[in-house]
Amino acid sequence: MSNHTGDTVLISEVGPRDGLQSIKTIMPTAFKLKWISALYDAGVREIEVGSFVPSKLLPQLADTAEVVAHALQHPGLTVMALVPNLRGAVTAFEAGVHKITLPISASVAHSQANVRKTPEEMMEEAKRIVAYRDANFPAISIEAGISTAFGCTLQGKVDEDDVIRLSVMAAQAGIDDIGLSDTTGYANPKQVRRLFRRLFDEVGEKAGAAHMHNTRGLGIANCLAAFEEGVRTFDSSQGGLGGCPYAPGASGNVVTEDLVFMFEAMNVKTHINYEKLMQARVALQEGLPNEPIYGMTPEAGLPKGFIQ
Amino acid sequence: MSNHTGDTVLISEVGPRDGLQSIKTIMPTAFKLKWISALYDAGVREIEVGSFVPSKLLPQLADTAEVVAHALQHPGLTVMALVPNLRGAVTAFEAGVHKITLPISASVAHSQANVRKTPEEMMEEAKRIVAYRDANFPAISIEAGISTAFGCTLQGKVDEDDVIRLSVMAAQAGIDDIGLSDTTGYANPKQVRRLFRRLFDEVGEKAGAAHMHNTRGLGIANCLAAFEEGVRTFDSSQGGLGGCPYAPGASGNVVTEDLVFMFEAMNVKTHINYEKLMQARVALQEGLPNEPIYGMTPEAGLPKGFIQ
Repeated sequence: MSNHTGDTVLISEVGPRDGLQSIKTIMPTAFKLKWISALYDAGVREIEVGSFVPSKLLPQLADTAEVVAHALQHPGLTVMALVPNLRGAVTAFEAGVHKITLPISASVAHSQANVRKTPEEMMEEAKRIVAYRDANFPAISIEAGISTAFGCTLQGKVDEDDVIRLSVMAAQAGIDDIGLSDTTGYANPKQVRRLFRRLFDEVGEKAGAAHMHNTRGLGIANCLAAFEEGVRTFDSSQGGLGGCPYAPGASGNVVTEDLVFMFEAMNVKTHINYEKLMQARVALQEGLPNEPIYGMTPEAGLPKGFIQ
Repeated sequence: MSNHTGDTVLISEVGPRDGLQSIKTIMPTAFKLKWISALYDAGVREIEVGSFVPSKLLPQLADTAEVVAHALQHPGLTVMALVPNLRGAVTAFEAGVHKITLPISASVAHSQANVRKTPEEMMEEAKRIVAYRDANFPAISIEAGISTAFGCTLQGKVDEDDVIRLSVMAAQAGIDDIGLSDTTGYANPKQVRRLFRRLFDEVGEKAGAAHMHNTRGLGIANCLAAFEEGVRTFDSSQGGLGGCPYAPGASGNVVTEDLVFMFEAMNVKTHINYEKLMQARVALQEGLPNEPIYGMTPEAGLPKGFIQ
């Protein structure tokens, strides 16, 4: 457990991808660009800006290439996109992203529903993507997000050994980081500690982000547990937008604002300015005037005398 | 940090007091009685059923004596009431409660606003209550809740030394347990660990409950931190009702349902049956048909295959 002062975490904003894909409203591209710039201005330095999937499947993200082009103009910003397969990866590489994230579901049922492949078939796809990257775009980073790592709305319990086995396979396949995703909001802090501890033991420095949902109210507690086990990258969505349309009942990424508040209050640096993050929240709401956005800290305001 | 299996926690339901005092609607007595019985049927074994304060100040709780009389009919239920002073304590003792809780604010500004006394004057009152209890009702337990222990909406920062000093004074005054209350939702997990660690160091077995609010989304994470430091009693409100009307902006106790889900998912026994807790939630909503009630787990449902 870490209690050092001087800790730093990376908040990886996934709202423009995980958030926007889960709502029906399509945010106009111009608003996405403003939102991303506002996030950058607040100090956010990693953003999953979209997904390279067929626009028929996710019309909300059909403008991803344009969004990537805009995001690339911000110095020091790591521009990420989700890809489900080699075809998407090639498009993402050509668009100039710095990093792709590949979801590999630990639940067979969820994997089939989400990408129509078994986890093992996804691993084969991962190997093809790594080979293509190595040959053509060696500077680009590849992350695997082990989804439904803590349970699945379709199959229920997910065997932790399967999660670790897939993580090790991904590391051996040449993936750069392996994160664990609580796609369904099933995780509890004890399980988070146990699974990330095993992940660190098995893949060492390749252990990546904690991607937690707040479906049952434990999202922030799960991030705390992951942090105390050594995780230093956290996926979250501004305004709590998000969820996975193929995991029924799953909704709501951890709220970026509340997560930033927690870490800053603990003297763990996010390098995100909370007041400017509120300006990005305004930009988000302007782009989605009819969608609810969430967050407890934005409602309550920062504590009196709180100095960041 | 505790990682033992076989851990047990006591969920102390404060909704009938902290919840109901913070809303304008008055729940009719008959509904309160049904709700309390439903909580008992779900396995809840400690309930703060009301407050012995002048009914002019809190008409919502004017029926506390009647509610106590009803609650006392449930074998094994610890019936608690909040009292602000000796007069309230005498009434509570005569009503037959098993335990009283006395709020002692660590913030001078909050203490003046809440009880029109300084913390030191409250400590003198505590001594009078202990003396009266010792002479007349030696079996009744007295808890002090150090309120605004993590910060105050009126004065901002609260010195941790003041919190510990008051806790030690309370222990020396003969108070049985000393809990720490995040009245304002300012606490963060690092602070919670630090302050409860000091509390255990200073007052040992007299260290009592964690009373957390979810005002900024960190309530459950703060409970987790407290649990891992050794706290085994947690105050929460069904449906997240609650807050303190004298601490502007403070609202929302930790949601009992989400807290029970977290502990049970971690294999920490609450001895509360989640499905029956949902029935108590119905009873609560029937008593307050026009008030919003909260909770993420009740919205999402338990995870598929979740066995309690």
